Amino acid sequence: MTPMDFPTLTPPLAQQFAFLAELDQLKNVLRRSLVGTTRRRENSAEHSWHLAMMALVLVEHGPVGVDLSRVLKMLLVHDIVEIDADDTFFYDVKGQSLKAEKEKAAADRIFALLPPAQAQELREMWDEFEAEATPEAKWAQGLDRLQAVVQNLRTNGAAWQQHHITKARVLESNQKIRATMPAVWQALVQQVEWADRQGYFWPEA
Amino acid sequence: MTPMDFPTLTPPLAQQFAFLAELDQLKNVLRRSLVGTTRRRENSAEHSWHLAMMALVLVEHGPVGVDLSRVLKMLLVHDIVEIDADDTFFYDVKGQSLKAEKEKAAADRIFALLPPAQAQELREMWDEFEAEATPEAKWAQGLDRLQAVVQNLRTNGAAWQQHHITKARVLESNQKIRATMPAVWQALVQQVEWADRQGYFWPEA
Repeated sequence: MTPMDFPTLTPPLAQQFAFLAELDQLKNVLRRSLVGTTRRRENSAEHSWHLAMMALVLVEHGPVGVDLSRVLKMLLVHDIVEIDADDTFFYDVKGQSLKAEKEKAAADRIFALLPPAQAQELREMWDEFEAEATPEAKWAQGLDRLQAVVQNLRTNGAAWQQHHITKARVLESNQKIRATMPAVWQALVQQVEWADRQGYFWPEA
Repeated sequence: MTPMDFPTLTPPLAQQFAFLAELDQLKNVLRRSLVGTTRRRENSAEHSWHLAMMALVLVEHGPVGVDLSRVLKMLLVHDIVEIDADDTFFYDVKGQSLKAEKEKAAADRIFALLPPAQAQELREMWDEFEAEATPEAKWAQGLDRLQAVVQNLRTNGAAWQQHHITKARVLESNQKIRATMPAVWQALVQQVEWADRQGYFWPEA
């Protein structure tokens, strides 16, 4: 976005529209997961939408008494930092170690496009998601993992194959799903065993 | 999605995962609006995310006392019918006359993938959006229009030029923005006048 996009606007709409225009960039951030039919790489904007829909549909399997509205807001906001920091592949150990710092710098810049009180409000949602200290944040993190596993199951393990991810690694790395949605995890493990028999995973060394 | 995607699941997860897998298809439904930087056509999944973010950021300009949580849910769900019915260009008069019937058939099929009570709950959200009878639905409709106008402004009127849309048509066709967000409308009209001076619109006959 350039400042020339909305030259006639005044505060607070000027800042709000600048922020909303910046968000357009999340549609260009590509994840390792593929979209089912076309097999193109999924972008983080459409992923965020899919994830919010998962929260809406799977709420009965989430933590008891969880505030769905707060989870939806957190999921809508959770990947915005990738506009600057890019998506870090979940199984990329080196990338994960650098991720926190890059994303914090991104949050400092991007949320500050908004009027101050609103910048703080959205930043707090993102901080909460990252800190995983509330039931809502824990469940949102579990859903984020679940969406990625499901996209891989639906594409015959395309990203797992491409990046040499074994079944054991998927199971041990996705305990956030088990911790927040035990019934879903139990079903997912069955599905993972079935997927293993189809050859979706990279073989153990 | 094929029934073989999750062969080991049992109800209600079997239906819920089938529905969530079906939603992947919304990422392949293309709108007339373009994404800002890449100028590719925007898909309805990323549009739905952008729209939910607009609701979150612009809530102070919406109707007084509006229930943001219900608006977010409605916006997340509002375009799902396009998986079967495709996106109908807002300025396509013939397309608009056929749209309601196609979308109703789509809603009948897609929401019914869910367990019955949940199917009804999501269908009611979509029916409410379509009926425009509540402040939440009216505002959600206004936001849907606003997002399209803003994407066009940001891409120098790309879709307006391509489909011969004049300034007068944009102003007269987007009164839902004025009705639900008067301050935003006032600012938008200034912006539209500026865009007109840059030649973003198709000239009047």
